[in-house]
Amino acid sequence: MLLYDLAGADDRRFSPYCWRVKLALAHKGLPFETVATGFTQIAAIGDGSHRTVPVLIDGERQIRESFVIAEYLEDRFADRPSLFGGPGGRAAARLIDGYATSLLVQIGRMVTLDIEGILRPEDRSYFRTTREKRFGKPLEEVVAGREDRLAGFRETLLPLRLMLRHQPFVGGAGANYADHILFGTLQWPRVVSSFRLIAEDDPVAAWFERCLDLYDGLGRAQAAA
Amino acid sequence: MLLYDLAGADDRRFSPYCWRVKLALAHKGLPFETVATGFTQIAAIGDGSHRTVPVLIDGERQIRESFVIAEYLEDRFADRPSLFGGPGGRAAARLIDGYATSLLVQIGRMVTLDIEGILRPEDRSYFRTTREKRFGKPLEEVVAGREDRLAGFRETLLPLRLMLRHQPFVGGAGANYADHILFGTLQWPRVVSSFRLIAEDDPVAAWFERCLDLYDGLGRAQAAA
Repeated sequence: MLLYDLAGADDRRFSPYCWRVKLALAHKGLPFETVATGFTQIAAIGDGSHRTVPVLIDGERQIRESFVIAEYLEDRFADRPSLFGGPGGRAAARLIDGYATSLLVQIGRMVTLDIEGILRPEDRSYFRTTREKRFGKPLEEVVAGREDRLAGFRETLLPLRLMLRHQPFVGGAGANYADHILFGTLQWPRVVSSFRLIAEDDPVAAWFERCLDLYDGLGRAQAAA
Repeated sequence: MLLYDLAGADDRRFSPYCWRVKLALAHKGLPFETVATGFTQIAAIGDGSHRTVPVLIDGERQIRESFVIAEYLEDRFADRPSLFGGPGGRAAARLIDGYATSLLVQIGRMVTLDIEGILRPEDRSYFRTTREKRFGKPLEEVVAGREDRLAGFRETLLPLRLMLRHQPFVGGAGANYADHILFGTLQWPRVVSSFRLIAEDDPVAAWFERCLDLYDGLGRAQAAA
Protein backbone atom coordinates (compact mmCIF):
# COMPACT_ATOMS: atom_id res chain seq x y z
CA MET A 1 0.00 0.00 0.00
CA LEU A 2 1.09 3.48 -0.81
CA LEU A 3 0.23 6.54 1.23
CA TYR A 4 0.58 10.05 -0.14
CA ASP A 5 1.80 11.92 2.91
CA LEU A 6 2.09 15.67 3.25
CA ALA A 7 5.73 16.77 3.48
CA GLY A 8 7.55 20.01 4.17
CA ALA A 9 11.18 20.92 3.65
CA ASP A 10 13.71 18.38 4.92
CA ASP A 11 11.07 15.68 4.47
CA ARG A 12 9.20 16.85 7.53
CA ARG A 13 5.87 15.00 7.82
CA PHE A 14 3.34 17.13 9.63
CA SER A 15 -0.23 16.49 8.48
CA PRO A 16 -2.54 15.58 11.39
CA TYR A 17 -4.70 13.54 9.04
CA CYS A 18 -1.79 11.64 7.49
CA TRP A 19 -0.48 10.78 10.95
CA ARG A 20 -3.82 9.24 11.84
CA VAL A 21 -3.65 6.98 8.82
CA LYS A 22 -0.02 6.00 9.37
CA LEU A 23 -0.82 4.89 12.91
CA ALA A 24 -3.92 3.07 11.69
CA LEU A 25 -1.88 1.17 9.08
CA ALA A 26 0.70 0.26 11.72
CA HIS A 27 -2.08 -0.79 14.14
CA LYS A 28 -3.34 -3.20 11.49
CA GLY A 29 0.20 -4.48 11.00
CA LEU A 30 0.13 -3.56 7.31
CA PRO A 31 3.36 -2.74 5.50
CA PHE A 32 3.15 0.56 3.65
CA GLU A 33 5.30 3.08 1.88
CA THR A 34 4.77 6.80 1.92
CA VAL A 35 5.20 9.30 -0.88
CA ALA A 36 6.41 12.67 0.38
CA THR A 37 3.96 15.14 -1.13
CA GLY A 38 4.04 18.92 -1.08
CA PHE A 39 0.83 20.95 -1.14
CA THR A 40 1.31 21.84 -4.80
CA GLN A 41 1.81 18.18 -5.76
CA ILE A 42 -1.52 16.95 -4.44
CA ALA A 43 -3.40 17.62 -7.67
CA ALA A 44 -1.03 15.27 -9.51
CA ILE A 45 -1.80 12.25 -7.30
CA GLY A 46 -3.43 9.24 -8.94
CA ASP A 47 -6.41 10.11 -11.11
CA GLY A 48 -6.00 13.85 -10.42
CA SER A 49 -9.25 14.13 -8.46
CA HIS A 50 -7.66 14.68 -5.07
CA ARG A 51 -7.47 18.04 -3.33
CA THR A 52 -6.20 16.85 0.06
CA VAL A 53 -3.99 14.17 1.51
CA PRO A 54 -3.90 11.50 2.84
CA VAL A 55 -4.64 9.45 -0.24
CA LEU A 56 -4.17 5.70 0.16
CA ILE A 57 -3.48 3.61 -2.91
CA ASP A 58 -4.46 -0.04 -2.49
CA GLY A 59 -4.09 -1.72 -5.87
CA GLU A 60 -6.67 -0.11 -8.12
CA ARG A 61 -8.33 1.77 -5.32
CA GLN A 62 -7.65 5.36 -4.32
CA ILE A 63 -9.14 6.22 -0.95
CA ARG A 64 -9.07 9.69 0.59
CA GLU A 65 -10.14 11.33 3.87
CA SER A 66 -8.59 9.89 7.02
CA PHE A 67 -11.81 8.65 8.61
CA VAL A 68 -12.93 6.96 5.40
CA ILE A 69 -9.52 5.32 5.09
CA ALA A 70 -9.74 4.06 8.68
CA GLU A 71 -13.15 2.55 8.02
CA TYR A 72 -11.84 1.00 4.81
CA LEU A 73 -8.92 -0.58 6.66
CA GLU A 74 -11.19 -1.82 9.44
CA ASP A 75 -13.55 -3.54 7.00
CA ARG A 76 -10.96 -4.88 4.57
CA PHE A 77 -8.69 -6.24 7.30
CA ALA A 78 -11.37 -7.27 9.77
CA ASP A 79 -9.28 -10.19 11.06
CA ARG A 80 -6.50 -7.88 12.23
CA PRO A 81 -6.46 -5.79 15.43
CA SER A 82 -9.53 -3.60 15.47
CA LEU A 83 -9.27 0.16 15.00
CA PHE A 84 -12.64 0.84 16.65
CA GLY A 85 -13.38 -2.03 19.04
CA GLY A 86 -16.85 -2.66 17.65
CA PRO A 87 -19.74 -0.63 16.23
CA GLY A 88 -20.09 1.63 19.28
CA GLY A 89 -16.45 2.59 19.08
CA ARG A 90 -16.73 3.30 15.37
CA ALA A 91 -19.75 5.56 15.88
CA ALA A 92 -18.17 7.31 18.87
CA ALA A 93 -15.02 7.91 16.84
CA ARG A 94 -17.05 10.32 14.71
CA LEU A 95 -17.66 12.47 17.78
CA ILE A 96 -14.01 12.21 18.74
CA ASP A 97 -13.10 13.23 15.21
CA GLY A 98 -15.30 16.30 15.73
CA TYR A 99 -13.63 17.01 19.06
CA ALA A 100 -10.27 16.77 17.33
CA THR A 101 -11.44 19.25 14.72
CA SER A 102 -12.34 21.73 17.44
CA LEU A 103 -8.78 21.32 18.75
CA LEU A 104 -7.32 21.69 15.24
CA VAL A 105 -9.14 24.99 14.80
CA GLN A 106 -7.55 26.37 17.95
CA ILE A 107 -4.13 24.93 17.19
CA GLY A 108 -4.22 26.34 13.69
CA ARG A 109 -4.72 29.83 15.07
CA MET A 110 -1.53 29.39 17.07
CA VAL A 111 0.85 27.66 14.64
CA THR A 112 -0.23 28.51 11.10
CA LEU A 113 2.60 31.01 10.65
CA ASP A 114 5.11 28.38 11.80
CA ILE A 115 3.78 25.99 9.17
CA GLU A 116 4.73 28.38 6.39
CA GLY A 117 8.26 28.33 7.75
CA ILE A 118 8.70 24.56 7.52
CA LEU A 119 7.29 24.19 3.99
CA ARG A 120 9.24 23.62 0.81
CA PRO A 121 9.86 26.97 -0.90
CA GLU A 122 7.54 26.09 -3.80
CA ASP A 123 4.59 25.47 -1.42
CA ARG A 124 4.81 28.64 0.63
CA SER A 125 2.91 30.97 -1.63
CA TYR A 126 0.07 28.48 -2.11
CA PHE A 127 -0.13 27.97 1.65
CA ARG A 128 -0.17 31.64 2.57
CA THR A 129 -2.68 32.57 -0.11
CA THR A 130 -5.20 29.85 0.72
CA ARG A 131 -4.88 30.23 4.50
CA GLU A 132 -5.11 34.00 4.50
CA LYS A 133 -8.25 33.69 2.40
CA ARG A 134 -9.67 31.21 4.91
CA PHE A 135 -8.78 33.28 7.97
CA GLY A 136 -9.55 36.59 6.32
CA LYS A 137 -6.32 38.18 7.54
CA PRO A 138 -2.51 37.91 7.36
CA LEU A 139 -1.03 34.86 9.08
CA GLU A 140 0.92 37.17 11.37
CA GLU A 141 -2.37 38.58 12.67
CA VAL A 142 -3.89 35.12 13.03
CA VAL A 143 -1.24 33.94 15.47
CA ALA A 144 -0.76 37.27 17.28
CA GLY A 145 -1.46 36.91 20.98
CA ARG A 146 -1.29 33.14 20.94
CA GLU A 147 0.23 33.10 24.43
CA ASP A 148 -3.04 34.55 25.70
CA ARG A 149 -5.04 31.75 24.08
CA LEU A 150 -2.94 28.95 25.51
CA ALA A 151 -4.91 28.65 28.76
CA GLY A 152 -8.17 28.41 26.84
CA PHE A 153 -6.73 25.72 24.60
CA ARG A 154 -5.54 23.72 27.58
CA GLU A 155 -9.04 23.90 29.04
CA THR A 156 -10.37 22.19 25.93
CA LEU A 157 -8.11 19.23 26.73
CA LEU A 158 -10.16 18.64 29.90
CA PRO A 159 -12.15 15.74 28.40
CA LEU A 160 -8.94 13.86 27.65
CA ARG A 161 -7.52 14.70 31.07
CA LEU A 162 -10.62 13.40 32.85
CA MET A 163 -10.62 10.22 30.78
CA LEU A 164 -6.99 9.57 31.69
CA ARG A 165 -8.02 9.21 35.34
CA HIS A 166 -9.61 5.93 34.33
CA GLN A 167 -7.56 4.43 31.52
CA PRO A 168 -4.24 4.91 29.69
CA PHE A 169 -5.70 5.28 26.17
CA VAL A 170 -8.94 6.47 24.58
CA GLY A 171 -9.17 2.89 23.32
CA GLY A 172 -9.04 1.65 26.93
CA ALA A 173 -6.10 -0.50 28.02
CA GLY A 174 -4.57 -0.14 24.55
CA ALA A 175 -4.64 2.48 21.83
CA ASN A 176 -7.02 2.41 18.89
CA TYR A 177 -8.14 4.80 16.17
CA ALA A 178 -9.62 7.20 18.71
CA ASP A 179 -6.08 7.67 20.03
CA HIS A 180 -4.71 7.95 16.49
CA ILE A 181 -7.15 10.79 15.80
CA LEU A 182 -6.06 12.78 18.83
CA PHE A 183 -2.41 11.85 18.50
CA GLY A 184 -2.29 13.13 14.91
CA THR A 185 -3.99 16.31 16.07
CA LEU A 186 -1.20 17.02 18.56
CA GLN A 187 1.64 15.60 16.48
CA TRP A 188 0.92 18.38 14.01
CA PRO A 189 1.99 21.27 16.30
CA ARG A 190 4.85 19.17 17.70
CA VAL A 191 6.34 18.87 14.21
CA VAL A 192 5.71 22.37 12.87
CA SER A 193 6.28 24.64 15.84
CA SER A 194 8.51 25.13 18.84
CA PHE A 195 5.57 26.77 20.61
CA ARG A 196 4.68 24.15 23.23
CA LEU A 197 0.95 23.67 23.61
CA ILE A 198 0.79 21.12 26.41
CA ALA A 199 2.14 21.68 29.90
CA GLU A 200 4.80 19.14 30.85
CA ASP A 201 2.97 18.05 33.98
CA ASP A 202 -0.36 17.59 32.18
CA PRO A 203 -1.49 13.92 32.09
CA VAL A 204 -2.22 14.62 28.42
CA ALA A 205 1.54 15.03 27.90
CA ALA A 206 2.17 11.58 29.39
CA TRP A 207 -0.51 10.06 27.15
CA PHE A 208 1.04 11.78 24.13
CA GLU A 209 4.44 10.34 25.02
CA ARG A 210 2.86 6.87 25.18
CA CYS A 211 1.42 7.47 21.72
CA LEU A 212 4.83 8.55 20.38
CA ASP A 213 6.11 5.13 21.50
CA LEU A 214 3.37 3.13 19.76
CA TYR A 215 4.27 0.82 16.86
CA ASP A 216 8.00 0.89 17.48
CA GLY A 217 8.09 4.63 17.93
CA LEU A 218 6.49 5.48 14.59
CA GLY A 219 5.49 8.96 15.72
CA ARG A 220 8.68 9.66 17.62
CA ALA A 221 10.80 8.91 14.54
CA GLN A 222 9.63 12.26 13.21
CA ALA A 223 11.67 14.89 15.01
CA ALA A 224 9.91 17.70 16.84
CA ALA A 225 10.31 21.26 15.60
CA MET B 1 -34.89 -1.72 40.60
CA LEU B 2 -35.07 1.48 42.50
CA LEU B 3 -33.34 4.69 41.48
CA TYR B 4 -32.80 7.55 43.88
CA ASP B 5 -33.37 10.53 41.61
CA LEU B 6 -32.63 14.15 42.47
CA ALA B 7 -35.83 16.19 42.74
CA GLY B 8 -36.71 19.84 43.17
CA ALA B 9 -39.98 21.48 44.09
CA ASP B 10 -43.04 20.20 42.19
CA ASP B 11 -41.22 16.90 41.69
CA ARG B 12 -38.99 18.43 39.06
CA ARG B 13 -36.26 15.94 38.07
CA PHE B 14 -33.17 17.78 36.89
CA SER B 15 -29.95 15.89 37.64
CA PRO B 16 -27.84 15.35 34.50
CA TYR B 17 -26.39 12.19 36.01
CA CYS B 18 -29.77 10.74 37.02
CA TRP B 19 -31.12 11.36 33.54
CA ARG B 20 -28.25 9.35 32.06
CA VAL B 21 -29.16 6.40 34.25
CA LYS B 22 -32.90 6.63 33.56
CA LEU B 23 -32.26 6.50 29.82
CA ALA B 24 -29.80 3.64 30.30
CA LEU B 25 -32.37 1.64 32.27
CA ALA B 26 -34.99 2.31 29.59
CA HIS B 27 -32.49 1.37 26.86
CA LYS B 28 -32.03 -1.99 28.57
CA GLY B 29 -35.81 -2.38 28.80
CA LEU B 30 -35.63 -2.69 32.58
CA PRO B 31 -38.61 -1.64 34.68
CA PHE B 32 -37.62 0.75 37.45
CA GLU B 33 -39.11 3.08 39.99
CA THR B 34 -37.60 6.35 41.09
CA VAL B 35 -37.50 7.88 44.55
CA ALA B 36 -37.71 11.66 44.44
CA THR B 37 -34.76 12.79 46.54
CA GLY B 38 -33.85 16.29 47.67
CA PHE B 39 -30.21 17.28 48.20
CA THR B 40 -30.59 17.08 51.98
CA GLN B 41 -32.09 13.57 51.80
CA ILE B 42 -29.15 11.97 50.02
CA ALA B 43 -27.30 11.09 53.22
CA ALA B 44 -30.28 9.00 54.34
CA ILE B 45 -30.23 6.74 51.27
CA GLY B 46 -29.52 3.04 51.84
CA ASP B 47 -26.51 2.39 54.02
CA GLY B 48 -25.89 6.09 54.56
CA SER B 49 -22.60 6.12 52.63
CA HIS B 50 -23.87 8.08 49.65
CA ARG B 51 -23.10 11.74 49.04
CA THR B 52 -24.48 12.03 45.51
CA VAL B 53 -27.26 10.62 43.39
CA PRO B 54 -27.99 8.63 41.31
CA VAL B 55 -27.95 5.59 43.57
CA LEU B 56 -29.37 2.43 42.04
CA ILE B 57 -30.71 -0.26 44.34
CA ASP B 58 -30.73 -3.70 42.78
CA GLY B 59 -31.67 -6.20 45.48
CA GLU B 60 -28.86 -6.10 48.01
CA ARG B 61 -26.63 -3.96 45.86
CA GLN B 62 -26.29 -0.20 46.05
CA ILE B 63 -24.48 1.25 43.05
CA ARG B 64 -23.57 4.91 42.67
CA GLU B 65 -21.98 7.13 40.02
CA SER B 66 -23.70 7.20 36.66
CA PHE B 67 -20.86 5.71 34.62
CA VAL B 68 -20.38 2.88 37.11
CA ILE B 69 -24.11 2.19 37.03
CA ALA B 70 -24.08 2.09 33.21
CA GLU B 71 -21.21 -0.40 33.24
CA TYR B 72 -23.02 -2.47 35.87
CA LEU B 73 -26.17 -2.58 33.73
CA GLU B 74 -24.18 -3.45 30.61
CA ASP B 75 -22.47 -6.39 32.31
CA ARG B 76 -25.45 -7.68 34.31
CA PHE B 77 -27.84 -7.47 31.37
CA ALA B 78 -25.44 -8.36 28.60
CA ASP B 79 -28.17 -10.08 26.56
CA ARG B 80 -30.22 -6.87 26.30
CA PRO B 81 -29.54 -3.95 23.89
CA SER B 82 -26.00 -2.76 24.41
CA LEU B 83 -25.28 0.59 26.04
CA PHE B 84 -21.80 0.82 24.54
CA GLY B 85 -21.73 -1.25 21.37
CA GLY B 86 -18.60 -3.18 22.33
CA PRO B 87 -15.34 -2.53 24.18
CA GLY B 88 -14.28 0.38 21.97
CA GLY B 89 -17.54 2.17 22.61
CA ARG B 90 -17.23 1.60 26.34
CA ALA B 91 -13.72 3.03 26.42
CA ALA B 92 -14.65 5.97 24.18
CA ALA B 93 -17.62 6.73 26.45
CA ARG B 94 -15.11 7.73 29.11
CA LEU B 95 -13.82 10.48 26.83
CA ILE B 96 -17.38 11.50 25.99
CA ASP B 97 -18.13 11.59 29.71
CA GLY B 98 -15.18 13.97 30.07
CA TYR B 99 -16.46 16.08 27.19
CA ALA B 100 -19.85 16.23 28.90
CA THR B 101 -18.16 17.37 32.10
CA SER B 102 -16.52 20.23 30.24
CA LEU B 103 -20.00 21.21 29.03
CA LEU B 104 -21.47 20.86 32.52
CA VAL B 105 -18.86 23.25 33.89
CA GLN B 106 -19.89 25.92 31.39
CA ILE B 107 -23.61 25.27 31.81
CA GLY B 108 -23.28 25.45 35.58
CA ARG B 109 -21.83 28.93 35.33
CA MET B 110 -24.93 29.99 33.41
CA VAL B 111 -27.79 28.29 35.28
CA THR B 112 -26.66 27.68 38.88
CA LEU B 113 -28.75 30.58 40.18
CA ASP B 114 -31.82 29.20 38.40
CA ILE B 115 -31.29 25.84 40.10
CA GLU B 116 -31.69 27.41 43.51
CA GLY B 117 -35.03 28.74 42.36
CA ILE B 118 -36.47 25.34 41.44
CA LEU B 119 -35.36 23.53 44.60
CA ARG B 120 -37.52 22.53 47.54
CA PRO B 121 -37.30 25.24 50.21
CA GLU B 122 -35.43 22.93 52.60
CA ASP B 123 -32.65 22.31 50.03
CA ARG B 124 -31.94 25.90 49.07
CA SER B 125 -29.60 26.85 51.87
CA TYR B 126 -27.53 23.66 51.42
CA PHE B 127 -27.30 24.30 47.69
CA ARG B 128 -26.27 27.93 47.94
CA THR B 129 -23.70 27.29 50.68
CA THR B 130 -21.97 24.39 48.94
CA ARG B 131 -22.02 25.98 45.49
CA GLU B 132 -20.80 29.37 46.63
CA LYS B 133 -17.96 27.62 48.40
CA ARG B 134 -17.13 25.75 45.19
CA PHE B 135 -17.32 28.83 42.96
CA GLY B 136 -15.76 31.14 45.53
CA LYS B 137 -18.41 33.83 44.98
CA PRO B 138 -22.14 34.51 45.24
CA LEU B 139 -24.31 32.65 42.71
CA GLU B 140 -25.49 35.98 41.34
CA GLU B 141 -21.90 36.81 40.40
CA VAL B 142 -21.32 33.36 38.93
CA VAL B 143 -24.08 33.75 36.36
CA ALA B 144 -23.61 37.46 35.68
CA GLY B 145 -22.87 38.10 32.03
CA ARG B 146 -24.00 34.68 30.91
CA GLU B 147 -25.33 36.12 27.65
CA ASP B 148 -21.74 36.98 26.76
CA ARG B 149 -20.63 33.40 27.33
CA LEU B 150 -23.32 31.83 25.20
CA ALA B 151 -21.37 32.03 21.93
CA GLY B 152 -18.37 30.35 23.56
CA PHE B 153 -20.57 27.58 24.90
CA ARG B 154 -22.12 26.99 21.51
CA GLU B 155 -18.63 26.68 20.04
CA THR B 156 -17.94 23.81 22.40
CA LEU B 157 -20.87 21.95 20.82
CA LEU B 158 -18.91 21.86 17.54
CA PRO B 159 -17.82 18.20 17.98
CA LEU B 160 -21.44 17.10 18.25
CA ARG B 161 -22.45 19.30 15.32
CA LEU B 162 -19.72 17.85 13.10
CA MET B 163 -20.67 14.29 14.08
CA LEU B 164 -24.28 14.95 13.16
CA ARG B 165 -23.23 15.48 9.54
CA HIS B 166 -22.60 11.75 9.41
CA GLN B 167 -25.09 10.04 11.71
CA PRO B 168 -28.24 10.80 13.75
CA PHE B 169 -26.89 9.67 17.14
CA VAL B 170 -23.53 9.39 18.89
CA GLY B 171 -24.31 5.68 18.98
CA GLY B 172 -24.60 5.69 15.17
CA ALA B 173 -27.96 4.85 13.59
CA GLY B 174 -29.49 4.51 17.06
CA ALA B 175 -28.84 6.04 20.45
CA ASN B 176 -26.69 4.44 23.12
CA TYR B 177 -25.10 5.49 26.41
CA ALA B 178 -22.92 8.08 24.67
CA ASP B 179 -26.15 9.86 23.72
CA HIS B 180 -27.54 9.38 27.22
CA ILE B 181 -24.48 11.11 28.65
CA LEU B 182 -24.88 14.15 26.43
CA PHE B 183 -28.66 14.17 26.62
CA GLY B 184 -28.58 14.26 30.42
CA THR B 185 -26.05 17.07 30.23
CA LEU B 186 -28.44 19.23 28.19
CA GLN B 187 -31.65 18.04 29.85
CA TRP B 188 -30.34 19.63 33.03
CA PRO B 189 -30.49 23.27 31.78
CA ARG B 190 -33.75 22.53 29.93
CA VAL B 191 -35.41 21.58 33.22
CA VAL B 192 -33.94 24.19 35.55
CA SER B 193 -33.76 27.34 33.45
CA SER B 194 -35.67 29.31 30.85
CA PHE B 195 -32.30 30.57 29.53
CA ARG B 196 -32.03 28.76 26.23
CA LEU B 197 -28.55 27.44 25.54
CA ILE B 198 -28.97 25.94 22.08
CA ALA B 199 -29.97 27.88 18.99
CA GLU B 200 -33.16 26.55 17.43
CA ASP B 201 -31.54 26.04 14.03
CA ASP B 202 -28.54 24.18 15.47
CA PRO B 203 -28.41 20.51 14.37
CA VAL B 204 -27.69 19.82 18.04
CA ALA B 205 -31.22 21.02 18.82
CA ALA B 206 -32.68 18.50 16.38
CA TRP B 207 -30.59 15.70 17.92
CA PHE B 208 -31.76 16.76 21.38
CA GLU B 209 -35.39 16.61 20.24
CA ARG B 210 -34.76 13.08 18.95
CA CYS B 211 -33.36 12.17 22.36
CA LEU B 212 -36.41 13.66 24.11
CA ASP B 213 -38.51 11.22 22.04
CA LEU B 214 -36.48 8.12 22.96
CA TYR B 215 -38.06 5.36 25.05
CA ASP B 216 -41.63 6.60 24.63
CA GLY B 217 -40.68 10.18 25.36
CA LEU B 218 -39.08 9.51 28.73
CA GLY B 219 -37.13 12.76 28.69
CA ARG B 220 -39.95 14.82 27.23
CA ALA B 221 -42.33 13.75 30.01
CA GLN B 222 -40.36 16.10 32.26
CA ALA B 223 -41.55 19.61 31.45
CA ALA B 224 -39.03 22.26 30.50
CA ALA B 225 -38.54 25.24 32.81
